[in-house]
This record gives sequence, structure tokens and C-alpha cells, in this order.
Amino acid sequence: MTLPVAVDAMGGDRAPGEIVAGARAAAELGIDVVLVGPPEQLEDTGDLEIIPASEVISMDEDVGQAVRRKKDSSLMRAAEAVRDGKALAMVSAGNTGAAMGSALLRMGRLKGVIRPAIATPIPNLVSHPTVLLDAGANAECTAAMLVQFAQMGSAYSSARYGTTEPTVALLSIGEESSKGSPLVKETHEALKTTTGFRFTGNVEGRDLLHGVADVVVTDGFTGNVTLKTLEGSLRFFMDALIGVIGADDETKKAGDVLLPHLAPLAETFDPEGVGGAMLLGVDGVCVISHGSSSARAIVSAVRVAHDLATGGLVDRLAQVVRPT
Amino acid sequence: MTLPVAVDAMGGDRAPGEIVAGARAAAELGIDVVLVGPPEQLEDTGDLEIIPASEVISMDEDVGQAVRRKKDSSLMRAAEAVRDGKALAMVSAGNTGAAMGSALLRMGRLKGVIRPAIATPIPNLVSHPTVLLDAGANAECTAAMLVQFAQMGSAYSSARYGTTEPTVALLSIGEESSKGSPLVKETHEALKTTTGFRFTGNVEGRDLLHGVADVVVTDGFTGNVTLKTLEGSLRFFMDALIGVIGADDETKKAGDVLLPHLAPLAETFDPEGVGGAMLLGVDGVCVISHGSSSARAIVSAVRVAHDLATGGLVDRLAQVVRPT
Repeated sequence: MTLPVAVDAMGGDRAPGEIVAGARAAAELGIDVVLVGPPEQLEDTGDLEIIPASEVISMDEDVGQAVRRKKDSSLMRAAEAVRDGKALAMVSAGNTGAAMGSALLRMGRLKGVIRPAIATPIPNLVSHPTVLLDAGANAECTAAMLVQFAQMGSAYSSARYGTTEPTVALLSIGEESSKGSPLVKETHEALKTTTGFRFTGNVEGRDLLHGVADVVVTDGFTGNVTLKTLEGSLRFFMDALIGVIGADDETKKAGDVLLPHLAPLAETFDPEGVGGAMLLGVDGVCVISHGSSSARAIVSAVRVAHDLATGGLVDRLAQVVRPT
Repeated sequence: MTLPVAVDAMGGDRAPGEIVAGARAAAELGIDVVLVGPPEQLEDTGDLEIIPASEVISMDEDVGQAVRRKKDSSLMRAAEAVRDGKALAMVSAGNTGAAMGSALLRMGRLKGVIRPAIATPIPNLVSHPTVLLDAGANAECTAAMLVQFAQMGSAYSSARYGTTEPTVALLSIGEESSKGSPLVKETHEALKTTTGFRFTGNVEGRDLLHGVADVVVTDGFTGNVTLKTLEGSLRFFMDALIGVIGADDETKKAGDVLLPHLAPLAETFDPEGVGGAMLLGVDGVCVISHGSSSARAIVSAVRVAHDLATGGLVDRLAQVVRPT
């Protein structure tokens, strides 16, 4: 018997409707799923089981207070289900900080992990996505943390994309090792002597969409700003293009010709298909899908959570950060 | 008699050819220009005067050594010309760090300035560009430095774009003042009580292309990574679109219909037209154009340098950072 993936039915801007629909769609694909939330608020749940949880942590709620006080929230109960061996993994499109806090409090840290990090896949047209971490879990980092992020990111890239000898790069403001903040310079030196991956040196913001490395390591502040800049500029350009195509009948016809050719690009960069960010360093699998997740995004996230949990991601992570 | 703008003839990937051509084009538009470089290496200089400089600092040369040793380099001589009242301002498309170092060594800091910063305009489709600083001069910053960047950025936005009551935002990983690195939290509090501009709070990476504020303040590490991410993703998308349009005869025809409509967008975001980044906090005007500058980019940079120098930018900056 396989365990189900616990889906936070109340997390995300489109919860519970799209989340429940996504969970059902995943179940129809043959993945065991259990919903977590207030049963009376969940409709059209079909055959899905529900782990009851009476409280909800909202998107903009203060994380520290929420995870301490709302012990019966859908997020805390989902994390608890993983801890108690009732679920294989958890998936939430809710408050990122609260998802992290719940996972950390209920599942606990892996032995030896200084701080868990959020790993986000950045797609490219060359190869499998680049794993960027930390994408926002830790606004302040040390070099020792960044070295662990490199180790965990490599294990994750191997588990998720089958990378055999993962390459790791460090995000900086120049390729030379002499450039960057004191943190980056110290981390650069430390990565040169760390085993388990191939450190390829520094990369810059402009390299991120070109698949320059399997893993790109940075502190959570820079990582979060960078990812949002990337998302924002791609969306800006897409919107501008759609605006131009919609201008008149002639441009609409031209758009009809070009759009099928742009489809592979749009598909590659579609956040709905990426499968969500992964919290690495806790004793369980926790996938955080973006706040505006539709049913389709939840299906991707559930699939990724299931595959990584059954593939032994947590064991691999535990091994690479094992205290010596 | 007006003073000329000193143009580093040897700076940039396309020096000296495109730089000399740009300087001549600017002169033809009625702006006094003087070239700085080794006279025997400069061709087709027309009527332009030349300040001789026998050395060149290359794009990837170590900055510290270069500015100490190459006292007769085109960059150091250009900065010297401004200091000695022989030039109104300097323009270089060369090594950014060396341009900064030359300006700092020869012109000196403005009284009260902790560290100069690089201010870069980010275009948008709504209003005048947003000034982002620091774009890379200081990989490590303090809150006091960021407050000065806000003051200098506001004065710059007023001088360059005629902004009357500049708005200043702080780049962070969430709009809430409780989010961000310790540096960002401390800066947030300090900006709330600083006068001379209107502090509108935190912004995120995704807001940068939407003209959310006249000035966005950040440390030089984050600023540099963010700008390069922005540039990289816009270029990536442009290249992808051009690739799709070039696929076959039908897509080329569709492209012919759409491209004129995309022209205003391309023009707005064309780095050649932006006029370069500005080093704020030194006792003189120093414009740093991007490394691949063509003649057209040099014309923009010379025009901006001329207008800001004659418009009294340095006096305005001196005033806002005046020690109390």
C-alpha cells in the first residue's frame, strides 16, 4: 500500500475550488491523494479522503504567530500527516512562510542541516531546469549555509532530473572570484573544496535562463528578488506581445501565425507546469506551489511530490548533509 | 565658452572606432566634446581635440592595480580633465570599476558622501524611467549608505527627469516592512524619517518594469544581480521572438506586420538610447555607458552628461548629502 500525498485544500488564491479539482485530477492519474481542510468547506471532493483541520492560515498572515497558534490549521495538519507516516508528502499553494514553518515545526530539520532552503526550478530551452536556491527561506545566510544549499540542490537535481554529476554555480556580480559580497567570496572559496558536485564558478543574473548549471546557489534575499525579477520581466514581455497582437484585425491574423510557434516557449516557462518549489532540509517532502495555482498546477505539484518522496529524496538529502 | 565633455576614446568593446564616431556625432549636434586617448591610435577624429593619454585600462583588468599604476590611462586623464576644469563631465564605455576608481581618485568624493553609487535608469511604459541604485559600486552596504542613495537618487531623478516630489521605494522580498534582510529592515525604518523625498515602502523584483517609484534603492550586490537578470530576460525573450519570426516565409510575413507595433517597446528598452549609468557622489559628472556601446549609445551618454553637468547636478547632490 502506498501512502497518499497530503494536499492543503485551503492554500492559495484559488482555494479550495481549484485545489480540490487538482487533487481529484491527480487521483484520476493514479496518485493517491488526501485533502486537508475543514470538511464542511470542501465541495466536489469525490472519493477523496479528508484529514480534518478547522483553521486556515491566510496568505498574508504573520507566519510566526500563525504556526504557533493555529495548530489545527490545514497547513499544520498536512505537515503532521507526513511526520506521523500518514502521508508521503505535503503540497500547498498557500502562505510560503507558513508552509515552511509548519514543515519545520512538525517534520523537523534533517540532522546536520543548518537551515532549510527553498529550491525553485528555472526553465531554459537547452536542458532540464536549473535549480535555484535559496529562493527566499533565509533572508540572511552564511557561507556554511550556502555550501549546504549546494549539496542539497545537487541531490535534488539528481533526484528530480536524473543529473549524474551535477554542476553548481554561485550567483554573483561578475565571473571573477574576486568579485561579489564578502559572503559570496567566502562561499566561492568553500565551494571549490566541497565534494559531491562540480563547482563551475560564479554566474551572473543574465545567465539564469540559459541553463548554465544544474544548480545555482545564492542567499534567500538575492534569490527571491532575482526570481521575482525574472517572473516579472517575462510576464511583462508576454503581456506587451499579447497587447500588440490584439491591436487590430491584421495583427490578430499575424498573431495566429506566430502563436503556435511560441507555444513551446510558453509551455516551457508556464509556472503551472513547473511543479512548484521544494523545501529542502526538512525530514519530509514539502512542495510549495505558487499562490495563484490552478488545478493543473496542483496536479504538477502532486506528481513531483509523489515521485520525489517515493524516489527517496529525503534519504539522499540526509546523506549529503550528514554531519562528519 | 562652454567646456567640452571628455570621452574616453579607448573604453568599451567597440573602442576606439564606435566611440570616436559617437563623439563626432555628438559634436555635430552642437555639444562640445574632447576625446581622451593615444592620438596615434585614433582615426577619423575630424575636428575633435584630443587629450593625450598613452595607456589603456582593459575591460577585465584588475581595478585596484590599474588605477594606481596607469596614471596616464585614458580613464584617469578623462577624470583629471574634469577635476582640472578642462572638461564639463566624463563619459566612458570601459571597465566600470576602473571608471569609478578613476572618478573617485581624481575628482574625489562629495563632502559627506559615505560611498558613491551607480544609478541606472530602468525604463517602463508608464512614465519616465525608474532610477535604480546602487547598481554595483558597493557589494556591501550599510543602512546609512542606502539612505544616502535614496537622497542622491532623488536629486538625480529631479535633475534628469524633472520629477518634482520624487518617490523612493526599497527593493525587498515582500511589501511588508517586517520582511527582508536585517539591512533592509533597518533601512526601511531609516527611510521613513528621512526628508527630501516621499518613501513609499518596499517593492519586489516583479514591480521594477512598472514604474512603481522614481527611485528604487538597494545594495550594489542585489542591484547588479537584479539589473543583469532584467536585461538577460528581456534579451532572451527578444531573441526567442526573433527566432520564431525567422522560422519560415509565413512567420516572416507575420513578423513584418507585428514588428512596427513592437517598435515603441523596443525603443523604450533599447540600452543604446538610455544614456548610460551615472556615478553619483563624486565631485563631477561621470557617465558609464555599457561595454558594447555603439556610436549611438555614446551620443546619448554625451548628451546626458552635458545636460546634467550644465544643469548643476553635482551642486544638487552636494546639497542633499551635506553633513549637518
